[in-house]
Amino acid sequence: MATHPAARHFDDDCAVVELGGEALVLTHDMMAEGVHYLPDQDPADVAWKLVTVNISDLVAKGAEPMGVLLGYMFGKDDLRFIEGLEEALTYYNVPLLGGDTVSGKGAQALGLTAIGKATHRPVPSRGGAAPDDIVYVTGPVGAAMMGYEALQSGSGDSEAYRRPRALVAQGQALAPHVTAMMDISDGVLLDACRMARASGVTFEMDASAVPIAAPEEKRAAALRWGDDYQLLFTAPTGRKLPVPATAIGRAVSSGETPLMLDGIPLSEKDELGYQHR
Amino acid sequence: MATHPAARHFDDDCAVVELGGEALVLTHDMMAEGVHYLPDQDPADVAWKLVTVNISDLVAKGAEPMGVLLGYMFGKDDLRFIEGLEEALTYYNVPLLGGDTVSGKGAQALGLTAIGKATHRPVPSRGGAAPDDIVYVTGPVGAAMMGYEALQSGSGDSEAYRRPRALVAQGQALAPHVTAMMDISDGVLLDACRMARASGVTFEMDASAVPIAAPEEKRAAALRWGDDYQLLFTAPTGRKLPVPATAIGRAVSSGETPLMLDGIPLSEKDELGYQHR
Repeated sequence: MATHPAARHFDDDCAVVELGGEALVLTHDMMAEGVHYLPDQDPADVAWKLVTVNISDLVAKGAEPMGVLLGYMFGKDDLRFIEGLEEALTYYNVPLLGGDTVSGKGAQALGLTAIGKATHRPVPSRGGAAPDDIVYVTGPVGAAMMGYEALQSGSGDSEAYRRPRALVAQGQALAPHVTAMMDISDGVLLDACRMARASGVTFEMDASAVPIAAPEEKRAAALRWGDDYQLLFTAPTGRKLPVPATAIGRAVSSGETPLMLDGIPLSEKDELGYQHR
Repeated sequence: MATHPAARHFDDDCAVVELGGEALVLTHDMMAEGVHYLPDQDPADVAWKLVTVNISDLVAKGAEPMGVLLGYMFGKDDLRFIEGLEEALTYYNVPLLGGDTVSGKGAQALGLTAIGKATHRPVPSRGGAAPDDIVYVTGPVGAAMMGYEALQSGSGDSEAYRRPRALVAQGQALAPHVTAMMDISDGVLLDACRMARASGVTFEMDASAVPIAAPEEKRAAALRWGDDYQLLFTAPTGRKLPVPATAIGRAVSSGETPLMLDGIPLSEKDELGYQHR
């Protein structure tokens, strides 16, 4: 077999493949019952989140979503899953291109592949932050945490947890301006560590500078919760940004640890957020 | 969000998406422990087959494979799985572009997305056979069945079952010549029914004309076993073919059933092959 001409770029959560003068961006995320969602969770919400986590990976690349392929293991309420899937695909305006279904033995496992087209080259990565860049976040964190608490307590608005929204327009608008970008899926502090490490810099951040959508006494927890899908990015000092964002820190030459939070050195080993296996 | 410009084509086992003047071909197949493979099966063989079933879907489109994304649930011997995965990716000369891993609760479930680039337009589908076309198969069926029996009995060569090979070169060579094409994954008779139905024709076939890689007394079984990944295709009468293939039937105007086998009308409802849920 001949080698294929696709330039290949294995980076972060997405693959970038050159095709016909375009950059195709691909991602595949899985969700497992009992790990990423509970057996009693509404399958429509599970479907929504499965789509959102994958679309959000494309968003962080400034990509325009083109479609998804679903790997679906039949579960307790497949019709309800399909309802949520259709709602999410309608919201993001992407087609279900194909996929596969299986009858599994045991807990449900789901996979989704999302593909998109880069709108800006080079495609942003998490590894491009340079010393003196400003670290930004597109909006408050902690909304999903509050939504989760509302869901658990049975009172209050759980929408932010059940139906998080990937910031498609913001990702595309920011792509030409950022030096590094990623979506916050596992907590702003943990993901900041990952971006700083990938970039070979240290981020100096003040915990109080991070906007939160939670009571002040829950600030520490909000900074360690994921699922908000806000964008974390860096841009050169003085760069005018096309969308609202809050400066939450500054990149400096690499120190001992990827993160200095209120003067305290922290790394991925500290309890900073949701750790995937 | 603006609508994306991707022309979309939802067909058969693959999606075809237009990008930058090229046709991107995508497929996603899953395999579940206890359904598609047994818990005691060698994880390296499971990995090989997971890659092959997906590459074979691309092959049937005449596509040149560009890469795969893996959705992997940790299992009993992950290192052994990776060995088989690397062997398969090396054999097909495709990169692992990305993917995701999860720790599941229960039986293992695996998903693979394969992407490729069409080498011929229009991209072959299973729905293009016309009356008077000849029905062909690229090689004998039943080899995987014999390999399975060898594996079960503990004697003989099980390679064809454990390490089936997608016919990448043949698919690309045939694409400009076929009116319809698909890979035989569920048995030549069942897949012939599907192709005939998708094309709106009936296939007249003689069971004795189908080449088999099994003793003659197992012909009926060989025609109902999948996993060989031979290509089933149709071409106009008299068309010179670029690769060896055996004529096994003829397309006629649609009759009562999609298949007439030795003069007997058959359809997907008959016991013709492996039926996925």
